[in-house]
This record gives sequence, C-alpha cells and structure tokens, in this order.
Amino acid sequence: MTKVHNFSAGPCILAPQVIKKASEAVINFNNLNLSLLEISHRSDDFVEVMDKARNLVKKVLNVPEGYEVIYLGGGASLGFTIAALNFLKVGGKAAYINTGTWASGAIKEAKKIGAVEVIASSEDKNFSYIPKGYTIPKDIDYLHYTSNNTIFGTQFKSIPKTDSLLICDMSSDIFSKPIDVSKFDLIYAGAQKNLGPAGSTLYIVKKELLGKTGNSIPSMLDLSNHIAKDSMYNTPPVFPVYVNMLTLEWLVELGGVKEMGRINAEKASTLYNEIDRNPLFKGVVEKEDRSEMNVTFVLNNEAHKDRFDQLWKKANINGIEGHRSVGGYRASIYNALPLESVKVLVEAMKELEKTA
Amino acid sequence: MTKVHNFSAGPCILAPQVIKKASEAVINFNNLNLSLLEISHRSDDFVEVMDKARNLVKKVLNVPEGYEVIYLGGGASLGFTIAALNFLKVGGKAAYINTGTWASGAIKEAKKIGAVEVIASSEDKNFSYIPKGYTIPKDIDYLHYTSNNTIFGTQFKSIPKTDSLLICDMSSDIFSKPIDVSKFDLIYAGAQKNLGPAGSTLYIVKKELLGKTGNSIPSMLDLSNHIAKDSMYNTPPVFPVYVNMLTLEWLVELGGVKEMGRINAEKASTLYNEIDRNPLFKGVVEKEDRSEMNVTFVLNNEAHKDRFDQLWKKANINGIEGHRSVGGYRASIYNALPLESVKVLVEAMKELEKTA
Repeated sequence: MTKVHNFSAGPCILAPQVIKKASEAVINFNNLNLSLLEISHRSDDFVEVMDKARNLVKKVLNVPEGYEVIYLGGGASLGFTIAALNFLKVGGKAAYINTGTWASGAIKEAKKIGAVEVIASSEDKNFSYIPKGYTIPKDIDYLHYTSNNTIFGTQFKSIPKTDSLLICDMSSDIFSKPIDVSKFDLIYAGAQKNLGPAGSTLYIVKKELLGKTGNSIPSMLDLSNHIAKDSMYNTPPVFPVYVNMLTLEWLVELGGVKEMGRINAEKASTLYNEIDRNPLFKGVVEKEDRSEMNVTFVLNNEAHKDRFDQLWKKANINGIEGHRSVGGYRASIYNALPLESVKVLVEAMKELEKTA
Repeated sequence: MTKVHNFSAGPCILAPQVIKKASEAVINFNNLNLSLLEISHRSDDFVEVMDKARNLVKKVLNVPEGYEVIYLGGGASLGFTIAALNFLKVGGKAAYINTGTWASGAIKEAKKIGAVEVIASSEDKNFSYIPKGYTIPKDIDYLHYTSNNTIFGTQFKSIPKTDSLLICDMSSDIFSKPIDVSKFDLIYAGAQKNLGPAGSTLYIVKKELLGKTGNSIPSMLDLSNHIAKDSMYNTPPVFPVYVNMLTLEWLVELGGVKEMGRINAEKASTLYNEIDRNPLFKGVVEKEDRSEMNVTFVLNNEAHKDRFDQLWKKANINGIEGHRSVGGYRASIYNALPLESVKVLVEAMKELEKTA
C-alpha cells in the first residue's frame, strides 16, 4: 500500500499495529472463532476488554483514587449536556470560557440546563487566542473550558486556576502529554482523535461529586448509573472501545504520555518553525497559544494556492484543508502521526518556496 | 476456522460477507490506502456510506415519503428518552404497553419527561405473554410498545390499533420481516441484532410531527437537528454505520425482508416444533405470542441440565444460556443465523432425548 500522510482532523490517523489488530479481531477475536462484532458484551472476553480499556486510562494518566473511568457513546456533543446535567445544580450557575466552536456548543447546551456565565471569550478575534486575565466568580458550581480548539488551532498551555470545580472537554488533546487529573472534577473526550475511532467518548470523573444537582437526569445521561454498572449500563460501543484499548496499549509500549509529549512537541516545533521561517506562509493564531495538535496556517499570497495544493497532493498528504471558519490549511498532528509525515509536509512547503 | 453456531442475544451473529468486508475496510477502505477508522466523516467516501445506509433502510422497508432515516449512538436506552422528548408534549400524556425489561425501561425514562399511563402489562405472569383487549385512551400524545421482547421471548404478531401517534422500539426484530412503516410515527432500534454491531441506533421518523412538544431538548437528543444535518450533526459512529450498510446490502441480495421473513419463520418453526415434540423440553411463553427472534425454553427436568449443556457445547453452539430473569435457555435466531445452525441445535435436543 502507498503510504498516505494522514493529517485528518478527526476521525484521524491511528497507529498501524492498532489498525492491524482491529482488523483481525473483526474476523476472529481472541481465537474464539467469532468476530468481535458478534459476541455478547457480557461475555468474559469483552468484559476483559472493557476492564483493560478503563484501567489503561488510569495507568497512562496516573488517575488518582476516587476517580472513575467510563466509555459512553454520543461524542463530546452529548458530553456538553452530560456535564451540565451532572454538575450544574438547580438554582446554581456555571462559568464557561469560550474559545471556539466546541466551547460555544458546550455553552449552548448548558444554558438549556441552568444559568451560565461566559466569563471570557476570544470571539472578538475569530478565536485566534486563548483569553487571559479573566476573573472567575466565587459562586459557581464549576468552570468549564475546552483544552484544545481543533478548528482554530489554539490550546491552553496551563490549567485555569479556580477554587470551584473544574470541567474540561479534552477531546482533541487528551493523551498528547501528561496532565494532572487531580486538578479536574470531570474530563470528557470524544475518542476519535488520540484514542480511537468515532463512536465512543471517555469520561473521567471524581465520583463523590455526583448526585448532588437536584436535576432529574435521564438514566443514560447520569454518570452514576454507568459507574455503578462498570461502564456496561447498556450495550457499550464494543468495537470502538476495543480500538481504544489497543491504542492505549500502543501508547504504553511507546513510553506513555511523557514520551508522547516529547514527540508531539518535536512534531509541532518542526512545523511551526517552517511556518515562521518560510516567507510564503504565516500562522493564524497567537504564537503563545498555538496548538500542538492542530496547526493552522495560511499562504501570504493566495496566488500560490494551486501550486502548493499540487505539491502536497503529490507527496501523498491527506486532510490539510483548513476548516471553512478559518480557511487556509490545518495540519492535525495527533499522537499517531509520525514525525516523518510532518517532515514530508515541511518539504512540500520548502519546495513551494523554491519553485514559486 | 471451526464453525461456531452463534445464538448470542446481541450483539449477535452477522453475515460472513459482512464480517469479511468490514475487516478489509479497517485495513484499506475504498482503495484509499487509509483505514475506514481514520478518514474524516465529512469525506466524500464516508458521506456516500451514510447516504447509502440511510437509503437502503428506505428501500428495504419501503419507507413512505415524509419519513426520515437517521443513525445515532446510545442504543435503544437513549432512544427511550429521545422518543419522549420529541413526542411527549408539555402537559400531555403518553400511553405505554409493558411487555418486559426494555418496555419497563422506556416507561421509566418517559416518566422523567412527562405523564405516562401504562395501559397494559404482562408483568403479572413474568412477561410470558403479550397483553390483549386493553383500551387505549383518546387523549394521549402517543402509544409506545416494544415489538419483540428479547429477554422473555415474546413478540407482537400485529400492530396495536390506535388513533393516536404510534412509537415502537423495534431493536430486536426490525428487518426480520416486512413491516408497514406508514402505521408508525417513530421507530427506533439499537442496531446490534439484525442490523450491525453495537454502537449505532436507527431512527425512522415522520418528519412533520417533530418540534411540537414545547420541551427544551438537548441538541443531541433533538431528532430535527440530526435530520437537518443528514445524520451528521456531529461525528457519527462511522464504523458501526458502515457495517449497517453492508448488512443491508446483504439483505437486499438475499431477497429483502419478504424472503428474510420466510426464512425466519422456517427457522422458528423448526425449533418450536422440536420444543413441543420433545418430551424433555417446554417453551416458557404463550404459544400465540412466541418470538421468531428469541426462542426461550426450559428442561422439564433439571437433572438433564449437565448432559444437555455438554451436548450443545460439543456441537459448537454458543450463547444459548437463558437470561437470569427467565432461566433455562434462549436461542436467538436473528437474521444472520442460518437454518443449518437451528438444525444443529435441534439435533442436540434429539440426542439428549435418546441418551437421557
């Protein structure tokens, strides 16, 4: 097979060994002579997968005692509602930081559940920076933020300091580097970036905080129910959870999130250095807020567009068209994307400079 | 590979050609040199899959004009809440028929949304029959029922007659035989029986009825949003939807739901005939309400249990242990289970009779 350099923004590239094992399990899982797709989720073989997938999250992120890990469906978009239903008290108030499309989505859904105060926003400059210097009210149930903004290419470099509970949508940078889980009360993340294929969403939650809102919560949106049933309250997304497990095994083999963070930093600096060096390109967000997952950039002169598009396509690069709300290019350099692919993109940028 | 006769209650057996194509797509999808798991859900290649999967549902079930087909995550358990949020009006009332565990779940979730009247129930006899002769109130927003009861092995043989809207959870018998979709206003079905692997849920809804309840609905639970975005409101469960598409293609090749219904009736009568003939076994539900999908039966004498369990295991039969709420055995004979497998089970039952 021709090697494709897959910069897709999500669902995105997964490690080759993960893809291979996933494909094999669809034919014959655990030598049962049955497909992973056709076994009961209550079978010992799948219960072991679910347990392993949950425990690997705890191991890889060094999750402290008192936190539970579960996998649900629905994506972060359903997580917006689940976060508010499980943490926003009747008569209470939540604070949100608006850093882009997904943060705005979280705010919209929380407003259907209760009172919401947007305490900071970068909407004034098309979300091209991470807000700083805002004041966090004292009387809130929680502060919510989005750690990495897939569409605009910004990323929080530090965890907001608050005395309140802290909730974070980490869909697009979880497992990309070490994080201090103890600083958070709920982390949720659609799996289809650094964790697995589309169809499962990870929740890491401080258990003792649940059940205190006074909300009437649909059973499927109540995190307590899923915890009580070891993430098997109903039929879980079996195949996506299995691929998550494989990806976490790959990550452990590779050296865990510390080593992953080192590799990701190298990939990001390789690409940002070229954007800053090459006179034909420029980045679109504040340098200090640049994402190590989604690198957004534009041509200084649109006249070079056809030639550049020709060059990266010829290099077997896939998925670097920018999102319609930003334009230009977006190279998503998630965990499974090798440094080699970044170098191929950099070469195409250099080639444009030489021949433009 | 040794042939396993897979009677699992769900996730359950899928057609061999579906499993094979699904496995191949995980390695290289559409000759893109990319895995199906790592391409954008907005790519032309996946948009085509989603369109095909939706259109095949319309074709196979002869869905009338005015109905929309979408795939969501969350299973029927989330469907319980989605049904009520989208159809139970503020100040309104819904009628439910309680025929088992899943119907009870639907009732429990609807009660969190509004007023619910359980107009008929077979709970008095451990759900071993389908209620008849009940009166449906005139002043309801909709009537809800569960067409096939996976755990107890009962099935509605006709569609309840009502002047109100009609909602049905068809998770475990959709696509098993022709149905008149025009009689329904919402059909929902967890895919992991006759349609695909765990992780996607099918909704067929009469579009003009949406948006009339006055409920504040989380965006992800509002069917209108998903319809407006062609079932791509957020990242859909890509791989499960693809396997649904493959299964529908297989069903079309096989002759559609009419031929499927003929085959399923033959499988069911083959097994029920043996249960009625063999003096060592008996069925556990009313004969007229027997499911053609989940065949529940018990030994007349528990002393034969070890010997029978030995016999079916030796025959490479998988997944016929009864659910804990019924005991005995449950042979799930979903669409993809061949008649051959039913005959192997019948042989094991005959062998027990000869040697007991």
